[in-house]
Amino acid sequence: MSSTLAPSGIDPATSPARALVCRACSARYPLVAQHACYECFGPLEVDHDTAALAAVTREQIEAGPRNIWRYAGLLPVGQDPATRVTLDPGFTPLVAAPRLAAEVGLTAPLWVKDDSANPTHSFKDRVVSVALTAARSLGFTRFACASTGNLANSVAAHAARAGAPSVVFIPSDLEQGKVVTTAVYGGDLVAIDGSYDDVNRLCGELVETDEFEDTAFVNVNVRPYYAEGSKTLGYEVAEQLGWRIPAQVVIPMASGELLTKVDKAFAELVEVGLVEAPAGGWRVFGAQSAGCSPIAAALHAGSDTIEPVKPTGIAKSLNIGDPAAGPYALEAVRRTGGWMAAADDDEIRAGIRLLARTAGVFAETAGGVTVAVLRTLVESGRLDPTAETVVFNTGEGLKTLDAVAGQAGPSHRIKASLRAARDAGLLG
Amino acid sequence: MSSTLAPSGIDPATSPARALVCRACSARYPLVAQHACYECFGPLEVDHDTAALAAVTREQIEAGPRNIWRYAGLLPVGQDPATRVTLDPGFTPLVAAPRLAAEVGLTAPLWVKDDSANPTHSFKDRVVSVALTAARSLGFTRFACASTGNLANSVAAHAARAGAPSVVFIPSDLEQGKVVTTAVYGGDLVAIDGSYDDVNRLCGELVETDEFEDTAFVNVNVRPYYAEGSKTLGYEVAEQLGWRIPAQVVIPMASGELLTKVDKAFAELVEVGLVEAPAGGWRVFGAQSAGCSPIAAALHAGSDTIEPVKPTGIAKSLNIGDPAAGPYALEAVRRTGGWMAAADDDEIRAGIRLLARTAGVFAETAGGVTVAVLRTLVESGRLDPTAETVVFNTGEGLKTLDAVAGQAGPSHRIKASLRAARDAGLLG
Repeated sequence: MSSTLAPSGIDPATSPARALVCRACSARYPLVAQHACYECFGPLEVDHDTAALAAVTREQIEAGPRNIWRYAGLLPVGQDPATRVTLDPGFTPLVAAPRLAAEVGLTAPLWVKDDSANPTHSFKDRVVSVALTAARSLGFTRFACASTGNLANSVAAHAARAGAPSVVFIPSDLEQGKVVTTAVYGGDLVAIDGSYDDVNRLCGELVETDEFEDTAFVNVNVRPYYAEGSKTLGYEVAEQLGWRIPAQVVIPMASGELLTKVDKAFAELVEVGLVEAPAGGWRVFGAQSAGCSPIAAALHAGSDTIEPVKPTGIAKSLNIGDPAAGPYALEAVRRTGGWMAAADDDEIRAGIRLLARTAGVFAETAGGVTVAVLRTLVESGRLDPTAETVVFNTGEGLKTLDAVAGQAGPSHRIKASLRAARDAGLLG
Repeated sequence: MSSTLAPSGIDPATSPARALVCRACSARYPLVAQHACYECFGPLEVDHDTAALAAVTREQIEAGPRNIWRYAGLLPVGQDPATRVTLDPGFTPLVAAPRLAAEVGLTAPLWVKDDSANPTHSFKDRVVSVALTAARSLGFTRFACASTGNLANSVAAHAARAGAPSVVFIPSDLEQGKVVTTAVYGGDLVAIDGSYDDVNRLCGELVETDEFEDTAFVNVNVRPYYAEGSKTLGYEVAEQLGWRIPAQVVIPMASGELLTKVDKAFAELVEVGLVEAPAGGWRVFGAQSAGCSPIAAALHAGSDTIEPVKPTGIAKSLNIGDPAAGPYALEAVRRTGGWMAAADDDEIRAGIRLLARTAGVFAETAGGVTVAVLRTLVESGRLDPTAETVVFNTGEGLKTLDAVAGQAGPSHRIKASLRAARDAGLLG
């Protein structure tokens, strides 16, 4: 079934999705398992019927479950709860961070959208729930992915909950926290000697084989559906702010897709009348690791071309050297008047600790990147310190413990006695 | 202010709490920072005004926030949101586990109450939020605890969010996941060469010193308030089942307090008319690690006396050798017709993997204990396989990775080529 024009199992009577459309040449395709345009090889995106989206009301959403499926009317699949393959992620906390704001020099409200609260503790649960629900509707019986770690955790956990087989492909140098947390769910886990980009390339070949005909690779053959799941982060931020779009958002970039989909979510909310367009619009900022910053480099060079890089550095979940949505992330940042910056490993570690100390949120390296870039953007004058800002923490510090383990240990070690406590200065 | 009869800051106009009462001799005390009876040294518990509790309605609760504070009308503190010191934990998923039920031999519905979804990924966020809210009401300005790890994480994170100083005491042999996840929040972290019981004893001495007069130890001087936070787990299970109490619950035991408070929560819900008493009542089952099972040992010996043990084994979060609430856990299990059992380290590891594989929930060792004991209780005929059952997962697998790291790695490791995939058997 993969990459064919077989009849779609996505029902236009319940889904607002109407077609897959090429982001490059606008060619249209039915709602099947296909991710690249036959005309120009551009990436495909789900096109929705605007009238169907506009029929969704705030009241319907607010009466829905406290997870991503409250937005089912704005998603391509999952309108019928019985069709969902899901851990019910989403509606994660939007945490006020006044002390972080003070430390980085913001005078306007600052919020942390904390997606470590998802079931497998990253934002990937959102995209996997949408991708696998689409996959089941399209007839697939096995679930797969190429992953830098968080996606692996999520696909394996979703498959376990659903009782379906899974096969997950990862680079062999991943953090132990992400390897164990995938393998424990019992599916196949294939470690590849190579980078994420090598893993992704191999999956692109496997998906074309007969042996994988029954297999949905969430970020390959059902990628257009998968990507739509990221919109829920944007919807939630707006709803949690009282149906308002913030003036500025700072978003980590791996493929760049999350950034483009948060921007798309804001645009959709305005287009269908769920929120008013904010005066002055919104500005989208992208954060990369200095060890893998091809999108930021293109922006800084004033180029439209993303030059692939060989990733290095501790922010492994962002280490995609050839980012598929890079050009679209560039476009969104330029169109909205945002900017991009990169953080080196020391800045990432400092960002993790700063966020923990000031907001009580323990982020993985990607969150450290975002907080470090927030600081850089304020210092460089690119981000307006007087405008409301939301930073996105997309993952959990427990998955990348090694990043800060050397800097976060006991402040004292003593024997179990009052005298020892006194000698250690704990009694003044 | 600790352990004195200073005027309470807990306002009876808004709080249903009326007094502290000795669980042993029923002596009554005002709502201050005190945890032991001056008459008999028995543990104190919060006594609530039944009429005030009975004024709480399902509609009020259901209109509240999706966290523990929806039950503020049943808690001693936190009725006014502005008084809360909290990460807003609670309302964690109640996950249907039909495949786990089938594997252990249950024919009735089985649910996993998954408290790894809390902000710091254990049930301790519930008790810490209530304890620190009480602490602030009572005038304390620094937050502390003795901890086997999860409590340390939670106190440090709560203090960071609130911008308050903290000092956390842990045994020096804790899992790295729990040490880093405490230290990263920036408070003082004191590693003690000794067991949890040694740590707890030292904290009992420190709390009496002048230098700690401003310090609330959540599980020492404000323990009665702390313990009430555990009731929210029982309330949530009942509400999530549609305002019903399940026939059987299986709960891990460290101090034994969680088990007693879930039982108390069910009794309160019936007493104040929020749920009907189930036909046949409910049965409470306790789960311990074989390396530390003093409460189960007393039950099995038909004794009322808990003989302290020196804990061993991988379930460190349950390693309390001298469990403060042991006698009350025994009483609850005997009164309701439940039972207790213990799981050894191999069974714990198998329990973690079984839960992950069948339900998509990755538990820490304590959750492995509970699932392993569920299996033992079914096999021994102590637990009725035809009666609805809820098992409690109190923590997150990422915090105790070492427990399963040796058993959960990649199933394949290959080069990045189709040929390598074929040679590894991935293509049939």
